[in-house]
Amino acid sequence: MSGVDLNSDLGEGFGVWRLGDDEALLDVVTSANVACGFHAGDASTMRAVCAAAAARGVAVGAQVSYRDLAGFGRRFIDVEPDRLADEVLYQIGALAACARAAGTRVSYVKPHGALYNATVHHEAQAAAVVNGVRAFGDLPILGLPGSRLLAATAAAGLTGVEEAFADRGYTPQGTLVPRGEPEALLTDTDAVVARALRLAQAGEIVAVDGSVLATPARSLCLHGDTPGAVHHARAVRAALDGAGIAVVPFAT
Amino acid sequence: MSGVDLNSDLGEGFGVWRLGDDEALLDVVTSANVACGFHAGDASTMRAVCAAAAARGVAVGAQVSYRDLAGFGRRFIDVEPDRLADEVLYQIGALAACARAAGTRVSYVKPHGALYNATVHHEAQAAAVVNGVRAFGDLPILGLPGSRLLAATAAAGLTGVEEAFADRGYTPQGTLVPRGEPEALLTDTDAVVARALRLAQAGEIVAVDGSVLATPARSLCLHGDTPGAVHHARAVRAALDGAGIAVVPFAT
Amino acid sequence: MSGVDLNSDLGEGFGVWRLGDDEALLDVVTSANVACGFHAGDASTMRAVCAAAAARGVAVGAQVSYRDLAGFGRRFIDVEPDRLADEVLYQIGALAACARAAGTRVSYVKPHGALYNATVHHEAQAAAVVNGVRAFGDLPILGLPGSRLLAATAAAGLTGVEEAFADRGYTPQGTLVPRGEPEALLTDTDAVVARALRLAQAGEIVAVDGSVLATPARSLCLHGDTPGAVHHARAVRAALDGAGIAVVPFAT
Amino acid sequence: MSGVDLNSDLGEGFGVWRLGDDEALLDVVTSANVACGFHAGDASTMRAVCAAAAARGVAVGAQVSYRDLAGFGRRFIDVEPDRLADEVLYQIGALAACARAAGTRVSYVKPHGALYNATVHHEAQAAAVVNGVRAFGDLPILGLPGSRLLAATAAAGLTGVEEAFADRGYTPQGTLVPRGEPEALLTDTDAVVARALRLAQAGEIVAVDGSVLATPARSLCLHGDTPGAVHHARAVRAALDGAGIAVVPFAT
Repeated sequence: MSGVDLNSDLGEGFGVWRLGDDEALLDVVTSANVACGFHAGDASTMRAVCAAAAARGVAVGAQVSYRDLAGFGRRFIDVEPDRLADEVLYQIGALAACARAAGTRVSYVKPHGALYNATVHHEAQAAAVVNGVRAFGDLPILGLPGSRLLAATAAAGLTGVEEAFADRGYTPQGTLVPRGEPEALLTDTDAVVARALRLAQAGEIVAVDGSVLATPARSLCLHGDTPGAVHHARAVRAALDGAGIAVVPFAT
Repeated sequence: MSGVDLNSDLGEGFGVWRLGDDEALLDVVTSANVACGFHAGDASTMRAVCAAAAARGVAVGAQVSYRDLAGFGRRFIDVEPDRLADEVLYQIGALAACARAAGTRVSYVKPHGALYNATVHHEAQAAAVVNGVRAFGDLPILGLPGSRLLAATAAAGLTGVEEAFADRGYTPQGTLVPRGEPEALLTDTDAVVARALRLAQAGEIVAVDGSVLATPARSLCLHGDTPGAVHHARAVRAALDGAGIAVVPFAT
Repeated sequence: MSGVDLNSDLGEGFGVWRLGDDEALLDVVTSANVACGFHAGDASTMRAVCAAAAARGVAVGAQVSYRDLAGFGRRFIDVEPDRLADEVLYQIGALAACARAAGTRVSYVKPHGALYNATVHHEAQAAAVVNGVRAFGDLPILGLPGSRLLAATAAAGLTGVEEAFADRGYTPQGTLVPRGEPEALLTDTDAVVARALRLAQAGEIVAVDGSVLATPARSLCLHGDTPGAVHHARAVRAALDGAGIAVVPFAT
Repeated sequence: MSGVDLNSDLGEGFGVWRLGDDEALLDVVTSANVACGFHAGDASTMRAVCAAAAARGVAVGAQVSYRDLAGFGRRFIDVEPDRLADEVLYQIGALAACARAAGTRVSYVKPHGALYNATVHHEAQAAAVVNGVRAFGDLPILGLPGSRLLAATAAAGLTGVEEAFADRGYTPQGTLVPRGEPEALLTDTDAVVARALRLAQAGEIVAVDGSVLATPARSLCLHGDTPGAVHHARAVRAALDGAGIAVVPFAT
């Protein structure tokens, strides 16, 4: 592997409210998943994050979501697929305008929260997301290896980009340990760093039972809204830089 | 004058709700002011209206608004100008994606409702709308002759397009008679048609006191949500066609 | 059976948008399921419908919903049960204030759309709705016979009221034929009227295969937003009145 | 003066977002202005704040607002007065249900943000707020001395309660120095404490030019969302307690 991308969710405030430390994370990551107004984000935060990303050479991605500000896009919604595709298209378009005004562009798409989780298994919604992206243009989609989303992406002739999670526990089958269960979250910085290094150097992740999973992940997701998130993110970036691993966006 | 444009507000439903007869008006007008989700409109209605407009060669404009679904964008909101500019940008971008997916493009911008009225006089909001448009690109702006909006448009080096209203009463000063006052609305079809013809042929409008106003209007606004609106619109179109006046979009 | 109640969904506009003919239905029904602002309805429509109901002696019920204006509450949302209970409480409280100002009160609760459908089977959401109602006070809940919702209502010591649908097809098992399938909807007025009469007189419904179902329904739901809905509703009311069957609210 | 009330804005998060330190302020104040969902607040935060207030004997007030989550209720909206009255009624009702479920009640009403500022001078909106309150019931209204709001409150036969601001600069005319101007905000804790003491003991406030204003304020507003807000609030409370001044709710 010639290098690794670091991605994080950004611009997840709304109006007067803020979430996470966008500025700090933008100094660490190479890809910014920018909220597009459906689960978080408003026109001004979108434009500001795009400008801050552009200033640092960080790639901008559309973090598309269910229409659900009250639930932060974390609840499954049984949206009709055609409507979902249109909403994905709308969100990408809105962000694209903000990005262009900030001197950059939308380089990829990543579903947020419950939509991300749903499209691992939900074939119709996975296809809807891909249809929405394709209606906009030929953008890569960031997703979970083995997901319906990436299968639909490939079937549509678009580029799928696989990601791994630095701070989430993996089952021996390669799925994420559900939140709420023990070992769902890695809280030890050394463990998070070790995983990031092994992933970038060897393409491997250690599951909760100690078994070793081969993973094709080209991008590593760093969370920004959990305690210690910025600390973890900086440690991962420093370790990768220290090991001489190129940290570069997968898309530009 | 070599021809006249007819514009109307379209796509002003939301979710399950509908307003006006989009299909009927699309057979009459040459420019469709498409609601962008802030006062009305959702991703699916936007995409559908764009597709229907494209099929008829009707130009698509972004009908940008205050963020106010509950009030249909009809109440003045004292938004900070920078935020307003960003919201204009967001709305145009969202519609641009829908338009592109439907095989067309956003050709112009027109503020809706209270934002339209505010930017006749409100210098900061007028400038904000223009800044939002310019951040997107070099699009014409449709507005009232003499408005701050068109002054700011010209000052920014963008193209302003003046419009007149076929069914609204004019004061001798060339402003609209406020809604609620007598003679605010022309309800007689013959009167609406006569105004449209005189405007297109001679560039003149007759005010409520009988005085004749010279107007540079290149576009004529037809309402779609009032009783008899579609009937008026069809009558105007038929009269213009019958008089051999070219009815053509001002922007493509 | 000493009489039957007729209930219908009302106040389902939002802002400038309208849905159905509230005035016409209020002349027919005895119980008004008033939208509370989450899938439809705003403060002014709520207060106006309460006033119109009060003037006719029609009982007011809180038609509680998922928070989903864009989807009209018709999409399942996987809301956390505690949050759902709080949202039910909020909606009832808001309507209660509108009802009191209009000289009436909230007499019962009925979930709307996808929440109604979900609580037929979804135990946690059914319990959440009941918890929200109980947090407000001792109100009857209107639901489908055999539903989890009515089971949870009984378990909580509240009064459940069973309803039947005059214009929906029933399976031999007593569930509704899903929308989209043949025979899901009765469109013939005579058939709708016959069902209403047989239900009120004999407590029976004829399923799509001709088998006869005994039903304990005390209320009959009339739709207001389908073509011919008002016509059906008036015909049902006239037939019941003509047969000397008391048409009375189940709650006051 | 036999004592003073301390009020603060609380429950101003929304969904996943939080604002201010509700728990800390609830240990200091005697009246909690609870956001009702229109500028901030959702059903779950409302119920939780009511429960926390009830546990401490803190009175609950409805902090009613324009419908404006995106702007946090800080932008003037030119709402029709009848609609505004209905929205005030809706908000109070929703909070009343949450309060009752938490073992307490709504004891007063205070407009938020731009609505508070508007109703100082805007006669129609001031009357609308009072009409909305009166439609709910006989609740006191908290406002600025000399405001149209309190004049309309008195005219309607309701109880107006005057408040002062511990951390805002006053002009010699007794109005607040507009935000953005020098001396608009008192940032020195000693100055804030001194003002609170003088107000509670002598009914006086010192204006920015040194002149002394007699004020009838029965309640003192403490902000919770500014830097050092909690520190200021605690210092004020400690000083009042230390001086033997009763800190008690004005309404129960």
